[in-house]
Formats: sequence, C-alpha cells, structure tokens
Amino acid sequence: MARIAYVNGRYLPMTDASVNVEDRGYQFADGVYEVCEIRKGDLIDETRHLARLEYSLGELRIAMPMGRAALGMVLRQVIRRNRVRNGYVYLQVTRGVAPRDHAFPTRPVRPALVVTVKPLDPALGAAVAEDGIAIITLPDNRWERVDIKTVGLLPNVLAKQAAREAGAREAWFVDADGFVTEGASTNAWIVTGDGVLVTRPADHGILRGITRAVVMETAAAEGLRVEERAFTVEEAKRAREAFVTAATQLVMPVVRIDEATVGNGKPGSIAATLRARFHDHAEAAPVG
Amino acid sequence: MARIAYVNGRYLPMTDASVNVEDRGYQFADGVYEVCEIRKGDLIDETRHLARLEYSLGELRIAMPMGRAALGMVLRQVIRRNRVRNGYVYLQVTRGVAPRDHAFPTRPVRPALVVTVKPLDPALGAAVAEDGIAIITLPDNRWERVDIKTVGLLPNVLAKQAAREAGAREAWFVDADGFVTEGASTNAWIVTGDGVLVTRPADHGILRGITRAVVMETAAAEGLRVEERAFTVEEAKRAREAFVTAATQLVMPVVRIDEATVGNGKPGSIAATLRARFHDHAEAAPVG
Repeated sequence: MARIAYVNGRYLPMTDASVNVEDRGYQFADGVYEVCEIRKGDLIDETRHLARLEYSLGELRIAMPMGRAALGMVLRQVIRRNRVRNGYVYLQVTRGVAPRDHAFPTRPVRPALVVTVKPLDPALGAAVAEDGIAIITLPDNRWERVDIKTVGLLPNVLAKQAAREAGAREAWFVDADGFVTEGASTNAWIVTGDGVLVTRPADHGILRGITRAVVMETAAAEGLRVEERAFTVEEAKRAREAFVTAATQLVMPVVRIDEATVGNGKPGSIAATLRARFHDHAEAAPVG
Repeated sequence: MARIAYVNGRYLPMTDASVNVEDRGYQFADGVYEVCEIRKGDLIDETRHLARLEYSLGELRIAMPMGRAALGMVLRQVIRRNRVRNGYVYLQVTRGVAPRDHAFPTRPVRPALVVTVKPLDPALGAAVAEDGIAIITLPDNRWERVDIKTVGLLPNVLAKQAAREAGAREAWFVDADGFVTEGASTNAWIVTGDGVLVTRPADHGILRGITRAVVMETAAAEGLRVEERAFTVEEAKRAREAFVTAATQLVMPVVRIDEATVGNGKPGSIAATLRARFHDHAEAAPVG
C-alpha cells in the first residue's frame, strides 16, 4: 500500500508529498517536529505531544498551523488513510515558504505542516528490548537550545551514525564536565545500586521527553524513587541498570556503554517493569 | 519574469520547485549550501566556493551530486535562464531522500541538488556601505562544527532576527571568553589603532569565508598587515574600524556595535578601500 502524507492541506501519496525549496525548514532548519506512538489503533499521549509542539513553536515565534483539535484530526486522518494500527505518526511544522533571508519573513507567511506515518510491528521493539542495546558516548557538540524540538538534527544524525558504526544503537551526549545530557534521540536513565532511578533535570540542556514524563509517573506508581540529577558516564557504567526512553523506543534497556557491561549484561528488572507498565500511564485515545 | 530553479535534474518555475518531504535536508538539516556572487555577468569565486562545498560534503560523507565542472554548468544554466547579470546564486546539497531514520540511509541514495538565483542591484549594497551598518552581539550558542556550511541555520536565523529587532543588520556571536567568533552570516573584522586588520583564525569555531580569504589577498596587495587572532567585543568597540565580509555583503563597514559608536561613526577608509579593490582579487568567470 502506498503511504499517504498530509502536506499543507492535501493528502498525497508519498512520492508526490513535497515542499517548496524555499520552505524555511529546508534552507534554515527553521521548524520543529513531534513523533507520537500509535498502538493498537490508539494515538498515544497526543495531548502532551501537542502541548510540547506549542512550546517549541512558541520559542521560535512560529504560529500553530491550526488549533490542537484540528491538528489531532489531521493526525488521525493520516493514520486512518494509511490503515496503521501500530507505528508512529510524525508531524513537522516550519515557518513556511519565503524568499531566502535569515531573519523572519517580513510579510506574514503560513506555517507549513507535514504529517507522515510509519507502521511498525511492536514485536520488533519488544525483541530488541529482550536483549537490550549497546550505546556509545560522545562529546555533546550541539547548540544550547536543545529543549526546542527543532529539525536541526545534524549533530544527532552524526552521533547515531557513529553509534551504528560502533555496533551500537544509540549515542549518549556528554557535557564538558563528563555528565550525560541525553541520547541522540532518547532521554538517558540509570538505576543506582539501591534502586533509585536517575535522569537529568529537563532544563535547557535536554529535551523534555514525553516518554520521560510518563516513565516518571510509572515509576511513582511502582513505588520507585526518581532523582532528577545529572550523572557521569562513569556512574552509568557502574549502575545496576541503564535505559533510554523515547516515543519510538518506550523504555529500552541499555546493556553496554562504550566497552563496559552494565550490570550482568542483561536487561534489568526495573527497566522491564517500567516498559511493561508504561501504557498503564500513557494517555491513549482512539484514532477512530 | 518567473524565477527558474534547478531541482534534481530539472529546471522548474519556483512555484513548482519542490523536494520530497523525506528529503533529509527537510527532516534533519542533513545538507550544506554555498552562495556565490554574480557580478556584471560573471560568476565570482566559483572555484573556491565549489572547493568549500566539497569540504563541507566530505565532512558529512555526502557525495558530490556531480563533478565540479558539471555543477558549474548547472549554476550557469540557472543564472542564464533567469537572465541575472548581478545578484547571487544559491546551491544546496542534501544527503537525499530516504525513509526517516537518524543514521545515514543504509541503501545508497542520490544526493539532492537545488540551485536558485536572486537578482540584486549592486547599487543597493553600495548605498548601505556608504552609511555602514549597526551590529549587535550575542552569546554564541551554536554547535561546534560551524566550519561546515550546513543548512542547520536556526541559531543564525534567531540572531539575525534579534539584530533586526534591535535596529541592526547583523549579529556577532561571542564565545564564553568574550571573544567574537563571527557574524550570523558574515565573518567579523576590526582595524586596530595602528591600521592592522584583525580577524579570528578559521578553525572549527568559524566558517572559512571565501570573501574573508579574498579580503586577505586584497589587504596584502594594499600593503596592509593582517593578524589572525581572536578579538573581544571591547576591543572591537574601541577599534579604529570594523567591518564584516560575505559573498552577499562583500566588505561591509560596521559603524555601531551594540550601543557603542565605532571610530567617528562613519565607514572607515580601510574598509572602503578593501571594498573598492575586492574584485581585483576575486576570481571572475563569465556566465556565458
């Protein structure tokens, strides 16, 4: 089945889904995005993702392309037209199309909206989670406003590629003081020897992950303590468990950090529990 | 006259000039660009711009979309079809179109090539240079690899917009130690009390400007000394002259830095000389 995308008011086959070369997303990375899980025909955590979208757009002074309710209807329409029951929906908003000039367009332009969808068998992610993943660590060389979920992802692209070439699935960025900031497309977590979950505070140095927030609620419901503080690579290597979170990964156990084995080299029980209970705490709304 | 763009093998009216929404330039800022001046029917410094393009692409392990000679022919064809005698030609190369995934596509994809052109009356720039420009200074919050001319320009966009809102035309980024790195779309220069030109060394902290290099040659021919070293905002405010360089600006005098007047508030004579002599040292090749 051909995939259908939404592009600025039209539903189009992917091969025809295109944007003008002067879309500022293409020439300046002047745009933001969100990715939501689709699970058993439900859209997961739409409310929080659209709230974060508004935050990102607000920081860049880009208007919402339409209201949240209308946007939710577009997401659902794309999901339905592609008959996706499990997978991810991707939405991107840019400042729009204007003659190339760094500063914002002086004449008002309509923000551009693109929505695509990707089916994915959840069994695949589950299988990866059974084994856990290896990660590498790299100096964090990104700009300072990574709290805005922009499409300026080239440092993340290069980090992910470095991970793959090292036989790993994710890269953790490390700040100048040796503390882990976050992964190239995930938030980073460890579990201490006495079972406390540790993850970096969501200040300007990391993205405020939606999955991260739901995992916090899940942890609380399971009676687990969460400490929001930075941790070093060395602490992570000695941790009882480590894992990453993202809408596309849920809770994904980490069993190797660079050359170090985490715990006994198997996914930890706390990560497994959080993964299993995650959807009890995420918001699920039918695609319809 | 409708503008014509080159997009992946085709010459198209701007309104039809589009790229797929899964072009990695759009979703990841995974691409680079160049801007060359067109002057009196000549293409300026094509050789150096295409060499820098190769450098940028090489750093990202993106292949050249075609050989340099063929690329030069495409630039010329776009310029000719738009009948532009004075202005700028813009070229952008991205990693190409592939299903969204941070790491490089595992199946080979063709790099995408887009070329557009913009006519501009050189009298306009000359008039601005007569008065000189105001600039503001901002903390440099960009990623570390700004030596690669990527389309990940959002920090530059925000800096330019901040400049405009402050009644200025450019923003200088300032590093954590108070030293100017470069402008949002220009290299930064000052002239000391004893007539020495100062500009930051072109390491990973700035882009190796083509115009910057030609100005160095122009300065040498004029018997002026150039020191490649970092300078602070304070030194710049006390400088005899200040100016910025870029293919779209040539040598543009700076007469105000934040609230400080530079020199006597008029464009300096050294900047004026460098601007006047610039094209004696730039490479000019007929568009044909």
